[in-house]
Amino acid sequence: MVKRKVPAAVIRRMPRYYRYLGDLLSKGIDRISSSELSERMGVTASQIRQDLNHFGGFGQQGYGYNVESLYKEIGRILGQDMEYRLIIVGAGNLGQAVAKYTNFYKKGYKVMALFDANEALAGSCVAGHPVYSMRDLPGYLCDNKIDIAVLTIPKEGASEIVQQLFACGIRAFWNFASVDINVPKEEVVIENVHLSDSLRVLSYRLRELNSLSESGDAIHE
Amino acid sequence: MVKRKVPAAVIRRMPRYYRYLGDLLSKGIDRISSSELSERMGVTASQIRQDLNHFGGFGQQGYGYNVESLYKEIGRILGQDMEYRLIIVGAGNLGQAVAKYTNFYKKGYKVMALFDANEALAGSCVAGHPVYSMRDLPGYLCDNKIDIAVLTIPKEGASEIVQQLFACGIRAFWNFASVDINVPKEEVVIENVHLSDSLRVLSYRLRELNSLSESGDAIHE
Repeated sequence: MVKRKVPAAVIRRMPRYYRYLGDLLSKGIDRISSSELSERMGVTASQIRQDLNHFGGFGQQGYGYNVESLYKEIGRILGQDMEYRLIIVGAGNLGQAVAKYTNFYKKGYKVMALFDANEALAGSCVAGHPVYSMRDLPGYLCDNKIDIAVLTIPKEGASEIVQQLFACGIRAFWNFASVDINVPKEEVVIENVHLSDSLRVLSYRLRELNSLSESGDAIHE
Repeated sequence: MVKRKVPAAVIRRMPRYYRYLGDLLSKGIDRISSSELSERMGVTASQIRQDLNHFGGFGQQGYGYNVESLYKEIGRILGQDMEYRLIIVGAGNLGQAVAKYTNFYKKGYKVMALFDANEALAGSCVAGHPVYSMRDLPGYLCDNKIDIAVLTIPKEGASEIVQQLFACGIRAFWNFASVDINVPKEEVVIENVHLSDSLRVLSYRLRELNSLSESGDAIHE
């Protein structure tokens, strides 16, 4: 199927195709031309074709795309035909929000447990998932096969926890902590969600927008 | 200061510089050579120079960078010298997590109120912030100057809410909803945090990693 390494930018666009096709499917649309899909998504038809060609290409000349089969195929490419077992490391507000986000469960991501350095939280439950002490982490990982560790911990001490998780066999990190993860890059996959960075980019753009509108360049009524 | 439009990729790298410099500062490091900074961050020294040159350039030949002044300057570029007033639209788990994330407050992002379609939540409090009914939103926005709307709502009905916020003068959206926002692009700034997309990219990469390790290509002990 996937023969060579697909560019990161292409991979990053795939979930968006997946969402759009899912929406079309839920509206009962079973076929779409590449130009229609392109218009809806605001990318060129040629970009869509090129992106999909990395995985074999799925359109038929003169027919367009079969929405359901393309949706399923992209889902398969994105590993949506699998089930993933997650632990959440850090049971604070963000960790709890992730645990309660039931959407993940529907999509095949199963939260197994939370861990926290605060011993007072150990023994409690969040959305039906047990919270354990950080000290129980190595033992837990010996007994349970976990695919993904969600990092919702403060950046202080995060590196040590990542080392520990790596030593216990974790290879996939969904990282909400504002740290860079120092483990051998070729042996792990890391997806960073840097919320503060995102907010700062927004602030930059807001100021840029305001300065444009003050100079009368950008706002048209 | 900023003369022409800076490429999006450069803007997106600035918060990372800002974090690194903040870390250096907190460790009492007041000066760093471009090669040292480059090594720590895993980007080339020439990339750093090029990125910073978009904003005027801040290094001195043979001296390197003054950590504190560069940190402050990048902070200013990212609008970190301002205070922002936020409302959170959608007071579910994610909205509540954002409200409780006190870090934002320290960084100049002040949560003013939450709004929710669920009338039962109206009148309650989340981390000291009032929760109002969605019906009160237009009135609230008439009476209060709000800079940023955080969207932590389900995608169903999200478009209508965005239209309403836009009509009431909101120009900056921090969007956690899995929808594309249909407002005139040149009049607003939008920063998307698509958590499901991020998890899907991670899943893709995990499978890629596993298939490489099965074929014995990538894992070295």
